Amino acid sequence: MSQPADTPPERDEPHHQDDVKDSLRAVQLLLARQRRVENLVHRQDMPRHDLVENLVHKQHVAELRQRLDAMHPADIAYILEALPLDERLLVWDLVKAERDGEILLEVSDAVRESLIENMAPSELVAAAEQLDADELADLAPDLPQGVLADVFRSLPAEEREELRSAMSYEEDAVGALMDFDMVTVREDVTLEVVLRYLRRFDELPDHTDQLFVIDRDERLRGVLPLNVLLVNAPETEVAVVMLTETLTLEPNDKAEAAAQAFERYDLVSAPVVDAERKLVGRVTVNAVVDYIRGEAEADQLAQAGLKEEEDIFAPVIDSVKNRWAWLAINLVTAFVASRVIGAFEGSIEKLVALAALMPIVAGIGGNAGNQTITMIVRAIAMGQVQPDAERRLLKKEFGVALINGVLWGGLLGLIAWWLYSDARLGAVMTAAMILNLLVAASVGVLIPMTLQKIGRDPAIGASVMITAVTDSGGFLIFLGLATIFLL
Amino acid sequence: MSQPADTPPERDEPHHQDDVKDSLRAVQLLLARQRRVENLVHRQDMPRHDLVENLVHKQHVAELRQRLDAMHPADIAYILEALPLDERLLVWDLVKAERDGEILLEVSDAVRESLIENMAPSELVAAAEQLDADELADLAPDLPQGVLADVFRSLPAEEREELRSAMSYEEDAVGALMDFDMVTVREDVTLEVVLRYLRRFDELPDHTDQLFVIDRDERLRGVLPLNVLLVNAPETEVAVVMLTETLTLEPNDKAEAAAQAFERYDLVSAPVVDAERKLVGRVTVNAVVDYIRGEAEADQLAQAGLKEEEDIFAPVIDSVKNRWAWLAINLVTAFVASRVIGAFEGSIEKLVALAALMPIVAGIGGNAGNQTITMIVRAIAMGQVQPDAERRLLKKEFGVALINGVLWGGLLGLIAWWLYSDARLGAVMTAAMILNLLVAASVGVLIPMTLQKIGRDPAIGASVMITAVTDSGGFLIFLGLATIFLL
Repeated sequence: MSQPADTPPERDEPHHQDDVKDSLRAVQLLLARQRRVENLVHRQDMPRHDLVENLVHKQHVAELRQRLDAMHPADIAYILEALPLDERLLVWDLVKAERDGEILLEVSDAVRESLIENMAPSELVAAAEQLDADELADLAPDLPQGVLADVFRSLPAEEREELRSAMSYEEDAVGALMDFDMVTVREDVTLEVVLRYLRRFDELPDHTDQLFVIDRDERLRGVLPLNVLLVNAPETEVAVVMLTETLTLEPNDKAEAAAQAFERYDLVSAPVVDAERKLVGRVTVNAVVDYIRGEAEADQLAQAGLKEEEDIFAPVIDSVKNRWAWLAINLVTAFVASRVIGAFEGSIEKLVALAALMPIVAGIGGNAGNQTITMIVRAIAMGQVQPDAERRLLKKEFGVALINGVLWGGLLGLIAWWLYSDARLGAVMTAAMILNLLVAASVGVLIPMTLQKIGRDPAIGASVMITAVTDSGGFLIFLGLATIFLL
Repeated sequence: MSQPADTPPERDEPHHQDDVKDSLRAVQLLLARQRRVENLVHRQDMPRHDLVENLVHKQHVAELRQRLDAMHPADIAYILEALPLDERLLVWDLVKAERDGEILLEVSDAVRESLIENMAPSELVAAAEQLDADELADLAPDLPQGVLADVFRSLPAEEREELRSAMSYEEDAVGALMDFDMVTVREDVTLEVVLRYLRRFDELPDHTDQLFVIDRDERLRGVLPLNVLLVNAPETEVAVVMLTETLTLEPNDKAEAAAQAFERYDLVSAPVVDAERKLVGRVTVNAVVDYIRGEAEADQLAQAGLKEEEDIFAPVIDSVKNRWAWLAINLVTAFVASRVIGAFEGSIEKLVALAALMPIVAGIGGNAGNQTITMIVRAIAMGQVQPDAERRLLKKEFGVALINGVLWGGLLGLIAWWLYSDARLGAVMTAAMILNLLVAASVGVLIPMTLQKIGRDPAIGASVMITAVTDSGGFLIFLGLATIFLL
């Protein structure tokens, strides 16, 4: 009998966070040493000492390979993401071919692309064939068409059906988060029978916190949490202790709704059933965590107008492509604002102080509007804003805008007065600030509420729109008031 | 023996997403009906028909109470968050007192405050006493000092120690996510013994996916996943099948690192050990999901300069307080930019086109800089940016800025030329755009990298800083170049 201390370290065991960073540093060190040897040989302009170089190289490679073999696929993915392209491909070549599939699943989209581009079709087919249907469905959009067709042909009929089903759902549907690793039991057996049945497995699927109880037609009758299985007497029948009032999802439910349910009810797994309550799959918390994290990141990126996550070592041209659309849109809105100013060039010529003061009015309006919109978008996402709340929210935001306008607008009016010794200029400044903050408040409420009403995502583009309105609006209000009252 | 269909719907069972929204609507309907009755009696200026009113009222209240009793605490929390203050307190009064504690844990900070403000100290003590030590630690910062002291005195010694320990950790440390619901076993017993031991529980703690194997000194020897327990023969000894190479956390580890580990290794729970490997607690995936969600939200709010989540029904004055700091900071940076323009008023007087064109240069610089900074902050957060990557990243961002500058700057130069029939003005416009984009790129890389080096969070305030630089910088570059070359 082996003692715990003698147990060899298992592959695939997760390591502590620091270990991963250590590994990254070790890999980088090995790569750097390797580079140094090559440089040395090269720089001294000697005939390449093939023998020595090869020896050193082989030693480093063996060390690297050994390290990589002992690592969790997610850790290898982390290291691949942190390496520049040439070193990344070098490390990728050293990874055992049978682990390619699971690692491709873990890396970010941008890095996955760079790896797939450098793999032969046969390698890709081999990698894809190691995956489950639901994993394959995640990878499929990135695979060349030919590879996907080859893989599809090689699958057994059942898995082919699963893959077809998994690929048929929208990216933001529960079906896309679902896997097919359910352990099912019947309700008319005893827990003893269930326990014996489970012992016939080599291992249970990850995140098996409950067994699904189904009838002869595969309809879900209830769930049997392992906790319930373990605390009850073996002679109890499943039907007696199973839970029947359990949360079920449907494949076309929104993934976000599933994520909220997992978060709210602290779930580890949930059954997915079709319209006839037939069990078709399950969603596990790890898929939900990945989804939540991905959404949060997508929001952050979208807010800065980045189409997708960037591989920080990607070529410059890829980055330009990732960022151009946003800059173009902003250029258009900036141009419109510029034309608004252009219309008042006569006024600015007469009173040049206007040019210095106008960006303040526009800028503060944009900031206040973004605060309002962030708050409303969040409340909408949480489902806390009923369509009839519009009037109430407008009233409140107007209140906030009025207080801020009087406060900050008043202060800036005084400063403008003091700077340019012109009380009327100060008064116009204050009035323009108040008005632009009111514009910001109303647009900040109305844009997301309208987007919601017409069934669009209230988060997307809201920030660009409000900045466009408060910029052009701010210039128009300030320069317009100045033209009327000062000139 | 009861059949599943006969099982009464259990309280606390999670409902489907739509059910929750239905419940919210039902509650609102009941409240509205109640309000209508009151209005009717009031408007007709009749002597209050106390009897009728009371009857209707009682019926509504009974219906509401029944609905609430059947709901999951997280769903009640959702409903409380979606109701304006007066109705929220009405519903809160109807919730059974023994459920107050678990619901207070679920509501958002802003709403929790509004509820606690309206509870008597004795109610608060009663609510707090229903909670576990780790839950109590989460609630503690919001409780009045006196209440906390009372609760503390009422706890048994062991729990008092747990509470003290849970409250001693930073909010962003593993210790703050930790709970104390571990099931522990010894390594020298058989799985049969473990199974018999588990049957003595009424139920296992939530998220028990593994048992912790400890020695006589409470040192962690390994973990026994339920999956392993279930698939192995009952006569096997724990030591033979337990996993020893498992991820462990320490109470002072960063919560973010734990979150990354859970995400990367798909964990459901992880043991927390002290420096001597003594088992002190465990972290479960639900705490991690809440943490991830909370962090993502805090980031979103911080980006718009909201100090904290707002209760959308909070009084105007609370909102003003939540938002004022950001507006003040932006006012200062806008004022600085305004003074830069002020310094060039002479130039603008001579060539008023400058006033119309300058916001474009500043705006596009700000957008491009925010793209760079978002990308770098993200890469730093993922741990993919080594401090020595600065030069490499700068080079890349300069490349992107140069391409964008030539492209968009060139286009705008042509437009300026066409609008104002002044080729030199167009050339200055193009040059200013290129230069400001280069400034944006370098500041976009250097700000987060520097913040990281001095050990500050690179995400906070980075966006304000870069906008300040690109605004003032853009005006300075454009107006400066124009003054030198055009006047």
